Amino acid sequence: MNDAAFAPVDAAIRAALDKQGFMKLVGAKVDALAPGRAVMSLERRSEVLQQHGFFHGGVIAFLVDNATTVAAGTLADREAGQGVLTAEYKLNFTSPAKGERIVCEAQVLRPGKRMSVVEAKVFSHEKGQAKLCAVALATIAMVEAPALI
Amino acid sequence: MNDAAFAPVDAAIRAALDKQGFMKLVGAKVDALAPGRAVMSLERRSEVLQQHGFFHGGVIAFLVDNATTVAAGTLADREAGQGVLTAEYKLNFTSPAKGERIVCEAQVLRPGKRMSVVEAKVFSHEKGQAKLCAVALATIAMVEAPALI
Amino acid sequence: MNDAAFAPVDAAIRAALDKQGFMKLVGAKVDALAPGRAVMSLERRSEVLQQHGFFHGGVIAFLVDNATTVAAGTLADREAGQGVLTAEYKLNFTSPAKGERIVCEAQVLRPGKRMSVVEAKVFSHEKGQAKLCAVALATIAMVEAPALI
Amino acid sequence: MNDAAFAPVDAAIRAALDKQGFMKLVGAKVDALAPGRAVMSLERRSEVLQQHGFFHGGVIAFLVDNATTVAAGTLADREAGQGVLTAEYKLNFTSPAKGERIVCEAQVLRPGKRMSVVEAKVFSHEKGQAKLCAVALATIAMVEAPALI
Repeated sequence: MNDAAFAPVDAAIRAALDKQGFMKLVGAKVDALAPGRAVMSLERRSEVLQQHGFFHGGVIAFLVDNATTVAAGTLADREAGQGVLTAEYKLNFTSPAKGERIVCEAQVLRPGKRMSVVEAKVFSHEKGQAKLCAVALATIAMVEAPALI
Repeated sequence: MNDAAFAPVDAAIRAALDKQGFMKLVGAKVDALAPGRAVMSLERRSEVLQQHGFFHGGVIAFLVDNATTVAAGTLADREAGQGVLTAEYKLNFTSPAKGERIVCEAQVLRPGKRMSVVEAKVFSHEKGQAKLCAVALATIAMVEAPALI
Repeated sequence: MNDAAFAPVDAAIRAALDKQGFMKLVGAKVDALAPGRAVMSLERRSEVLQQHGFFHGGVIAFLVDNATTVAAGTLADREAGQGVLTAEYKLNFTSPAKGERIVCEAQVLRPGKRMSVVEAKVFSHEKGQAKLCAVALATIAMVEAPALI
Repeated sequence: MNDAAFAPVDAAIRAALDKQGFMKLVGAKVDALAPGRAVMSLERRSEVLQQHGFFHGGVIAFLVDNATTVAAGTLADREAGQGVLTAEYKLNFTSPAKGERIVCEAQVLRPGKRMSVVEAKVFSHEKGQAKLCAVALATIAMVEAPALI
């Protein structure tokens, strides 16, 4: 898919995300979308932390949830009315997220007609260095429904 | 552990949760704590939904993250300075969470000295009926550190 | 589904399992099948152990793989040509499986038209006592294909 | 760790695997060991297949189980008596394993003192081409015990 072909997909996904009350509440941003790929990030502020000053695990899970679903959604057959639905994911925390910003990079490993398998890595950025703080593996259902993302 | 013995554990966990900026932002409540068990809930409001009016998957993951960790934390050896840390979890979404309230019930399946295995079920409550909307399986590390929960 | 209606399903699944070379090699048995449920077991012998005399984790995973898929398969719409395919599972080991026999009980938590969510618990039986040695959560795809199980 | 330092680790792990009855029954081979890495493979034969002639999912899970645990085991502090124990893993099947051989490559993503996070990819080799047939994410406990692997 070339850039021109992807532009309306990009716009449709951003419009759907803009309607997510929780996306606004958390304050996450879409950094990049491409076929099979989504990058989202979140700046540090007290409302997204846990009691020791690290990004809350639930915030990290939210980024993983959205980024993996969106990454699969970039490959949905929109003309055929296909949308995506998060079936499940598994998330390992590898180090405390104590940076100024966290970035979640989701990449489709295997696109499918019925379901897609997506990997996500979350990095904590601190003083110009990125450290892996979580890694995830997700299954996204490709459904015959008005595009969910 | 009898009720009197559990009272200070209950208080310590609630105090730790009160210091979570993200717990406040999301607006989740602790419904019940008991040895090996934690129940948390969240009322419907637009800020915790996705674009189709269902509770956001990331909100459900947040409840699972906190409730499973807390359930393991109720069994930490606090006198020995033991705390808990979320190692990983896996979450399956079983139906759209479209109710007025979601409730996450976490139960330790196998308490451990080094790690505990915890199950969580999330129910969407609608018109007096509870429907399973997610199920999860978590591994919580029991660590030698100032109690994290 | 009553017993008479389930009889041909039971027979079809057992026939499919009889054609699995690996089922024979491992020596696992089907203890029970019912709508949404499958129980399989394996007797202790040196060929299915690891180096410390416990049942090998890979043997436990095999039982989980087969029992969860079969549990979902009991609910497939066979007249419509529906079969099942293992999409993914997650498995926690909760204690060493050192008994004389292991038994895997799989139960569908949420049957679906497109995918089913199945839970499995594996017990190690020793001197008349059953101890939980593993717990799993699986996603089984319900596919339009000559019944795979 | 240089090659000379790794040689006794390599030998100890191969010796432990040689004592696994199930490793022999399945017929898997160790292709490569290195610090943080393990590669295992299995040739096609009828005893390791399911009823449609593909490698059985349980066989793939066995390779994932062993390779991820061994990959973490290469980094255990053997002089301090540290060993490894599989805590949990999650496994997604991405395509039918219909090749002549399957190869599981496990790589430690985050080594830890208490637990390590390991990724595994399983490829089906057919006519000189390798196709991803499964991907997995595992948590391996680093334990104070006579080295388990």
